Amino acid sequence: MAKSRFEYVRSYELPDPLMPGTFIVVRIDGRGFHKFSDAHSFSKPNDRRALDLMDMAAKTVMDEYKDVIMAFGESDEYSFLLKKNTKLYNRRRSKIASSIVSLFTSAYVFNWSRYLPNEPLRYSPSFDSRVVLYPSAKEVRDYFAWRQADTHINNLYNTVFWALVQSGQSTAEANKALQGTDSKDKNELLFSKFDINYNNLPAMYRKGSTCVRKPYPSTSTSSIAPEPSNIPSSTSSHNSPLVETPTRAADIEVTNSTTNTIAAKLEDMKAIKVPSSESELQSERPGSESRSGSVPIQEQKVKTPKKAKPFEGIDGELTIIHEDIIKDTFWDERPWLLE
Amino acid sequence: MAKSRFEYVRSYELPDPLMPGTFIVVRIDGRGFHKFSDAHSFSKPNDRRALDLMDMAAKTVMDEYKDVIMAFGESDEYSFLLKKNTKLYNRRRSKIASSIVSLFTSAYVFNWSRYLPNEPLRYSPSFDSRVVLYPSAKEVRDYFAWRQADTHINNLYNTVFWALVQSGQSTAEANKALQGTDSKDKNELLFSKFDINYNNLPAMYRKGSTCVRKPYPSTSTSSIAPEPSNIPSSTSSHNSPLVETPTRAADIEVTNSTTNTIAAKLEDMKAIKVPSSESELQSERPGSESRSGSVPIQEQKVKTPKKAKPFEGIDGELTIIHEDIIKDTFWDERPWLLE
Amino acid sequence: MAKSRFEYVRSYELPDPLMPGTFIVVRIDGRGFHKFSDAHSFSKPNDRRALDLMDMAAKTVMDEYKDVIMAFGESDEYSFLLKKNTKLYNRRRSKIASSIVSLFTSAYVFNWSRYLPNEPLRYSPSFDSRVVLYPSAKEVRDYFAWRQADTHINNLYNTVFWALVQSGQSTAEANKALQGTDSKDKNELLFSKFDINYNNLPAMYRKGSTCVRKPYPSTSTSSIAPEPSNIPSSTSSHNSPLVETPTRAADIEVTNSTTNTIAAKLEDMKAIKVPSSESELQSERPGSESRSGSVPIQEQKVKTPKKAKPFEGIDGELTIIHEDIIKDTFWDERPWLLE
Amino acid sequence: MAKSRFEYVRSYELPDPLMPGTFIVVRIDGRGFHKFSDAHSFSKPNDRRALDLMDMAAKTVMDEYKDVIMAFGESDEYSFLLKKNTKLYNRRRSKIASSIVSLFTSAYVFNWSRYLPNEPLRYSPSFDSRVVLYPSAKEVRDYFAWRQADTHINNLYNTVFWALVQSGQSTAEANKALQGTDSKDKNELLFSKFDINYNNLPAMYRKGSTCVRKPYPSTSTSSIAPEPSNIPSSTSSHNSPLVETPTRAADIEVTNSTTNTIAAKLEDMKAIKVPSSESELQSERPGSESRSGSVPIQEQKVKTPKKAKPFEGIDGELTIIHEDIIKDTFWDERPWLLE
Repeated sequence: MAKSRFEYVRSYELPDPLMPGTFIVVRIDGRGFHKFSDAHSFSKPNDRRALDLMDMAAKTVMDEYKDVIMAFGESDEYSFLLKKNTKLYNRRRSKIASSIVSLFTSAYVFNWSRYLPNEPLRYSPSFDSRVVLYPSAKEVRDYFAWRQADTHINNLYNTVFWALVQSGQSTAEANKALQGTDSKDKNELLFSKFDINYNNLPAMYRKGSTCVRKPYPSTSTSSIAPEPSNIPSSTSSHNSPLVETPTRAADIEVTNSTTNTIAAKLEDMKAIKVPSSESELQSERPGSESRSGSVPIQEQKVKTPKKAKPFEGIDGELTIIHEDIIKDTFWDERPWLLE
Repeated sequence: MAKSRFEYVRSYELPDPLMPGTFIVVRIDGRGFHKFSDAHSFSKPNDRRALDLMDMAAKTVMDEYKDVIMAFGESDEYSFLLKKNTKLYNRRRSKIASSIVSLFTSAYVFNWSRYLPNEPLRYSPSFDSRVVLYPSAKEVRDYFAWRQADTHINNLYNTVFWALVQSGQSTAEANKALQGTDSKDKNELLFSKFDINYNNLPAMYRKGSTCVRKPYPSTSTSSIAPEPSNIPSSTSSHNSPLVETPTRAADIEVTNSTTNTIAAKLEDMKAIKVPSSESELQSERPGSESRSGSVPIQEQKVKTPKKAKPFEGIDGELTIIHEDIIKDTFWDERPWLLE
Repeated sequence: MAKSRFEYVRSYELPDPLMPGTFIVVRIDGRGFHKFSDAHSFSKPNDRRALDLMDMAAKTVMDEYKDVIMAFGESDEYSFLLKKNTKLYNRRRSKIASSIVSLFTSAYVFNWSRYLPNEPLRYSPSFDSRVVLYPSAKEVRDYFAWRQADTHINNLYNTVFWALVQSGQSTAEANKALQGTDSKDKNELLFSKFDINYNNLPAMYRKGSTCVRKPYPSTSTSSIAPEPSNIPSSTSSHNSPLVETPTRAADIEVTNSTTNTIAAKLEDMKAIKVPSSESELQSERPGSESRSGSVPIQEQKVKTPKKAKPFEGIDGELTIIHEDIIKDTFWDERPWLLE
Repeated sequence: MAKSRFEYVRSYELPDPLMPGTFIVVRIDGRGFHKFSDAHSFSKPNDRRALDLMDMAAKTVMDEYKDVIMAFGESDEYSFLLKKNTKLYNRRRSKIASSIVSLFTSAYVFNWSRYLPNEPLRYSPSFDSRVVLYPSAKEVRDYFAWRQADTHINNLYNTVFWALVQSGQSTAEANKALQGTDSKDKNELLFSKFDINYNNLPAMYRKGSTCVRKPYPSTSTSSIAPEPSNIPSSTSSHNSPLVETPTRAADIEVTNSTTNTIAAKLEDMKAIKVPSSESELQSERPGSESRSGSVPIQEQKVKTPKKAKPFEGIDGELTIIHEDIIKDTFWDERPWLLE
């Protein structure tokens, strides 16, 4: 078989190395998730089960790729930070972007029935991904601040919007009512009309989800993320002996206003049983790159078992927190993220 | 919230348009599928169920992306051809590469239990993807020829290798026995020792899977791919009135040698019930790009319903065939592929 | 000296290969040439000496780079076509783009005093360059058609504009007079008011300059471009035995209307003595890549003398013509350009 | 004229923006300068006139491009540092790389006869250029350290090599004599055999040329670079009030060993009359991007006069120094370079 006659087409596969010494962010984003959320009856403005599933998928990515040292998610998007000097796939752009989005998607579908057991998956959801490079710690911090600011803005809007709709307004009326309002207006509207103190809403909705590694040895009170909903989601970070964290006091979830629809729904969510990490189920996680089904044995090379290269950032248990990552505290506690 | 203060980080998202007027090939490839196939007890050298699942995932991609006009798969890889003048995602490289691999992965996991009902999925499989551009029809044909030649070489090797192993040799012995042999040697060894006529093995294994659209109006004998295994998989192409296809006569699956392990196993596979296309289950397939779970209503724009842009290649029922795509016949029958 | 300690910075030099099998066009463009032309008293609307100098610089590039098989110039820009399968500098984008613009600039300054002997060069002119890839012959032809159409549009406008100005109008008045006029209007204005038949103006101004190789053995009547101005510039193409070229009859420069300023100026230009090719002066043109002044001998390697690789397009004497390259004739006569 | 019919080819010109917030280095490199230096009888191992001409060309680049805040040259190469946040040409890669190499080349040829008045330029020299991005100050410093280390290694080797050759050895013998020697060996060989103290050789040869801006208001003793050769080339830096510069004491050129060929030649060079900056000759330096010779008036737009944007680095007189740029002193004195 004249294999060589055709093989020249490989020369069209051009290299796409990412610049060395820069921070790599991979952001994945749901495709058509507005309709997807309708088709699967997601709660509005937030569906705890769906967000937990996103967190689970993100954890699967970090579990597999030790060079991913942090992730931040909100709504149907997730951003992954790779350490600055990562050599993952020789920093090949498509390889990194595609492998991460593929594993994320895979874990999302794989774990669907565990997080939304009463909601059969009707069709295959998908995500896109992109790679963005940042030259220094400042831009990386600002990137995550940008995403978390976005979380806040969207969530505040959506919280008021859906409160109005659930109180009987049409979506058009609700939209109109919110036109031209600023944050303060929305907060007041929430409190005066619906008896909702925005700051008492779950931190997960207000702050998004941040997935980090908790350095070993882990403390006995550590929680595995996504945390079961009946445990306040941000307590884990309170164990940190490094710094005072007064700013996060408000993050403790105390929803004492159960008199309106939304708050009641939130309480309900806490009862949902969330499974533990996927990694517990995987004893034989494969790392080899070789083939499957019809494995081309010819191409198999005897590989010397790879030594686990010591991770240069930090190794530790994956944990999901719902904190302010715009302020310094988060970063000061984890200096390895920006090294 | 000082959103604008951070938003400058968006300027680091640089454009990545693909050159216009060139053929786009997206190839996805299983990550760690050697171990994955072991972990899920794939039959050797080919697991019909796993290959059908790959085909199903490819069909899902082509079902969603009309600009993908052809796909070719073997083992744990699949290549997708986009029409030369596609404007999909404004030809943005990462968007195309990531969306396709994500949907493929999603469909692979989503459909797993239907194709391998007795084999629980143990962990999340994943794929990578890459984009390759080709300037002209010649390179596109040679690209697919390259992949199909690879299919043949690998499958012939694996067929002999596993026959030897199943007859009692160790893998090391089998490997050694095959060293330095050419195609003819392997064919003879198969026939003399195992009574296997290589050309009588299923075309799917020898030729891989090619997914194309069958022009409407479809004929009454059209099969929906992946075809139920008890129907010869390549019959659909025999309806073509355009050309004589004598070379494909050998592709009709007649395995009359049931005296050895492999052939027997192949027969068994034919009994597997394969579900029909995923698209039948999806009445409400979403196309919008907007948000999910916590949908940022703010960002929702009233969209006028998009008119279905007439597909400039060919619209038609998706079908999987197992033909020779190195020879001219395949391409001559489908001139729209290379336009 | 700890050379190795710093050498890691080389890893930041990323590969930039151009896609194989595509046509490469390098277009150079004068920077700030409006003021440059004022500072050096260029004739308006065209300065024959300056255009000849541009042609000379283009010839120097083609003389040095055999893989450049055609060039087209107008005003202060020049486009170079490299043969589709060129391996020049391994198709490295910056290497190709920068070497060509550098040599062009060098030749422009080097030859300045020969083409504008009475106009001292006052400062260093410069050009930029860009690489554009085209997948097929069609786009290449359309690219050059685009540039030549541009030549026509600009030259017609400028011819009328400067005729008006030289007849006493201010530039503002001239601009206003031309607003909203089409080609026909401008032609009539030229003829009725200035007795100029636009089609009789020099082909160089109307058609731009095309530099091609004339296949060996060259005919006895071949001219070396830039042709001395007193020889009709397009005669060389009339030697072609391949096709009738009736459309180019109008290109023969017969300016019999010497009654107005512009035509008179054109006649004057013909008297300018134009030197012959730079290559005649260069017996020892260097090809090696090694160092200069303080040559790092360490790095010198003994090189076996490179055999002149047979040029796969066409070798031949460089010639500048002023023809229509939008029509088929030009390309039909030179099939090697698009191979 | 169907301009629009062809204009689609412009869509093949793809964007090539450089990542924001990174340091841009453009390195230009002589093409074929080993032969070029032979063809023009450059002195070995260093030709002061040729190096001064390189410096002059570099100054022309910095004079024109205020965003170029530093340059370093040796032999036939020069590296230009652009400030981190430069918006020059919207950070378009080819535009930056090509414009700089073109202007450098232009100035090299333009100024040739002033620096090598007795050496007619025989043909057009050329340079290539490349862009390299560095994310932080560290890599920028290491980049220049890498180049200066290279200068040292090459110059030491070449100095001994040519001393051997000038003392009667063949080049082959000289090469062999130097095989396996380290820096110390070479220094001793120079001293014992040729009475040359390497550290007393001109700093220009040992340290290369660094072009920087001297902040306004300039001191009265400032020298314009390239300094006339009879003034010690590194004195200018001694005016700095910022720091003690003891390490540069050795850089003062005191060649008291006139007994051998090389040293004598160096003395001779000092007599060469070097012209002052090109910028003095240019009162009407053009900045506009519009056309020349046949200016397409149509395209001229009325431009509001651009306000001189305050340079965010430092404005000041260009000066060439020959200092150690590996050590901290150089950078500490000029903090704006790495901001």
